[in-house]
Amino acid sequence: MNAEIIAVGSELLLGQIVNTNAKFLSQQLAEIGINVYHHTVVGDNPDRLRSVLEIAESRSNLIIFTGGLGPTKDDLTKETIANHLGKKLVLDEYALTSIENYFKKTNRLMTDNNRKQALILEGSLVLQNDHGMAPGMLLSTDTHSYMLLPGPPKEMEPMFLQYGQAALLGKLDSNEQIFSRVLRFFGIGEATLETEIEDLIDEQKNPTIAPLASDGEVTLRLTAKHSLPDVASSLIDEVEKKIFDRVGDYFYGYDQTSLMEELFKKLQQLDLTLACAESLTGGMFQQQFTHFPGAGNILKGGVVCYTNEVKEKVLKVSKVTIAKQGVVSEACASELAENVRELLDADVGISFTGVAGPGELEGKPVGTVYIGVSIKGKTKVEKFIFGGSREQNRIRAVKHGSHLLLKMLS
Amino acid sequence: MNAEIIAVGSELLLGQIVNTNAKFLSQQLAEIGINVYHHTVVGDNPDRLRSVLEIAESRSNLIIFTGGLGPTKDDLTKETIANHLGKKLVLDEYALTSIENYFKKTNRLMTDNNRKQALILEGSLVLQNDHGMAPGMLLSTDTHSYMLLPGPPKEMEPMFLQYGQAALLGKLDSNEQIFSRVLRFFGIGEATLETEIEDLIDEQKNPTIAPLASDGEVTLRLTAKHSLPDVASSLIDEVEKKIFDRVGDYFYGYDQTSLMEELFKKLQQLDLTLACAESLTGGMFQQQFTHFPGAGNILKGGVVCYTNEVKEKVLKVSKVTIAKQGVVSEACASELAENVRELLDADVGISFTGVAGPGELEGKPVGTVYIGVSIKGKTKVEKFIFGGSREQNRIRAVKHGSHLLLKMLS
Repeated sequence: MNAEIIAVGSELLLGQIVNTNAKFLSQQLAEIGINVYHHTVVGDNPDRLRSVLEIAESRSNLIIFTGGLGPTKDDLTKETIANHLGKKLVLDEYALTSIENYFKKTNRLMTDNNRKQALILEGSLVLQNDHGMAPGMLLSTDTHSYMLLPGPPKEMEPMFLQYGQAALLGKLDSNEQIFSRVLRFFGIGEATLETEIEDLIDEQKNPTIAPLASDGEVTLRLTAKHSLPDVASSLIDEVEKKIFDRVGDYFYGYDQTSLMEELFKKLQQLDLTLACAESLTGGMFQQQFTHFPGAGNILKGGVVCYTNEVKEKVLKVSKVTIAKQGVVSEACASELAENVRELLDADVGISFTGVAGPGELEGKPVGTVYIGVSIKGKTKVEKFIFGGSREQNRIRAVKHGSHLLLKMLS
Repeated sequence: MNAEIIAVGSELLLGQIVNTNAKFLSQQLAEIGINVYHHTVVGDNPDRLRSVLEIAESRSNLIIFTGGLGPTKDDLTKETIANHLGKKLVLDEYALTSIENYFKKTNRLMTDNNRKQALILEGSLVLQNDHGMAPGMLLSTDTHSYMLLPGPPKEMEPMFLQYGQAALLGKLDSNEQIFSRVLRFFGIGEATLETEIEDLIDEQKNPTIAPLASDGEVTLRLTAKHSLPDVASSLIDEVEKKIFDRVGDYFYGYDQTSLMEELFKKLQQLDLTLACAESLTGGMFQQQFTHFPGAGNILKGGVVCYTNEVKEKVLKVSKVTIAKQGVVSEACASELAENVRELLDADVGISFTGVAGPGELEGKPVGTVYIGVSIKGKTKVEKFIFGGSREQNRIRAVKHGSHLLLKMLS
């Protein structure tokens, strides 16, 4: 099955938004073994839409549309496809009820053109919209399948995952299912990780191993095909073990997680409280930590000690340390971590001090970073030299700090 | 001139990256009055690339390619276009010298296939690459213009802005230039702002007025066409004045700025120091503020007071306030702003307290937020009810805090 994704919307052609739907769907389709050979974007214009539809029919057998299912007269994806295929649009009672309920729930007034959204292509399978009004649909003819999805990613993505993917799997020739697991690594480069397991990547057919690098992390996606979930899972387990034998030291979590989330869960599990002293990172560590509900049970708080004055006055870093070794030093990181832990009466203290840039500080080059961790009297400081942009240095410091503390607690 | 943007790269079809190049170019082309009617993405496959090129020629007269200019055998944009048009690829000495210099500068070894990158389509105008190796080019035939740009956005974007746009303007029928100015508003919804100036939007032809909403802000882009920059600027000034007469109260800055950046500049200009008490926002305000180099001269620091204990112990919020009114209260926000200002001996104190969610706090609903500002003894607290997600509530609180303080200082 070869697929093409057609996004409908003039806002894309004006450059007001980026076509993340094509990326999302391509990734999902790749996972279930469907090849995507073309993406197309076309505006809210029936003639041009019809023309790209005809081109797509000539080269693809699965055509997925995103957008143009709204209530206004600009929205014409359904209408154009219906005209082209000589199909009628019929009212779907279930979709109409959902739309009516949606208006009740959000306390808004339903207008007549919202009824238009409950019209579906005659003979199509309806894909329920749990996060908005326009239902999706899948229509199959002898030669082609047409899937229509809403444009807003927050409606489209859950609809595809919940209903769209299953509908497509039903059309695939095999009864195999696709299972995948993502392994996340930190502290090892993509090239090095790939070299370490190159032979495994080349040998492996089921599951396959796909590396991807982003934001200083590397992930491996293991994807197995089998009709039985348990067997697929065992196949993945076997390869995972081989990978862990070689680079397990750098592994930190599965699937959609982050270093900060793993650290949050670890502190929660150990029932430890946390206090932070942030100079370099200016609050970034705590901001990310407090993203998670329940952070208040772990993070007592912290001090953003952006000036030497605050380091001395609030966090009691000794004048001698600052005068002799400077604030960008192992000694300062150590005192900050210990003192913030004591000040806030927490189990664990973490500190960040360094040179974010663009200028040097105390004669130390941009990217010099010290991270301190103090756990019930035991203190450890690590030094890093990053040398990226100001923002990159801050982001990398937060990641390394999370990783350092996570390792110490494991 | 009608344009089509063709992105070449299998990584786009696998969903590994999102096509931000199409968005960037569409926005830039819209600004110089070139209509974009199609975006296409195709993989690193010569037959399919040739086929989409032929389709593009049948419906567009400017065809812009991104990607496929690299050194490896996968990269075949130039080769495919050369074959299709019956053009030769010729070595560009200037491009070759640039590539050689690039290798010297980055201390890497140049390989033979890097020479391939210096080949250009015979008769084309070379677009210099100041951030990488592959040069871009613009080739014109009697019927079409073909622009080839590199795939990585950090190479493509500056190349287009620096050389590509001018090359296209040279092909446009007029000697008019395009000038635009963005006005940024906060505290007014898109619909309300549009209603207030609807007649102006409808009447205005030069400059045009284009509203856009994002992240709780609304912008108006004023775009004028004229051969003389001074005249274009006056045309924009006139309309700006009319707009300010109606909604000037909500205006906060021009072009690429943010509320936080305007606040930063205002504090810098007034030579005031700042201290922050962040409960709700967990460090987000300070993290954003310290994004700007030189933040250390303004922000003395702050306290992330995530627990009642830290509010009492470090920031001296009175037990009575917490017991009687709770931490989500006007009184608590007021004490936090005043006390953090005094503790850190700053000119200005700002505080955030509230219910981020997902659960209620002290019987107060999710999204209840108090922001306090204390300036040399004068304290003001504003209450907000947002009611979004946890992260939305935090982000909106930071924006409203920046705006509140900016207004008080203006």
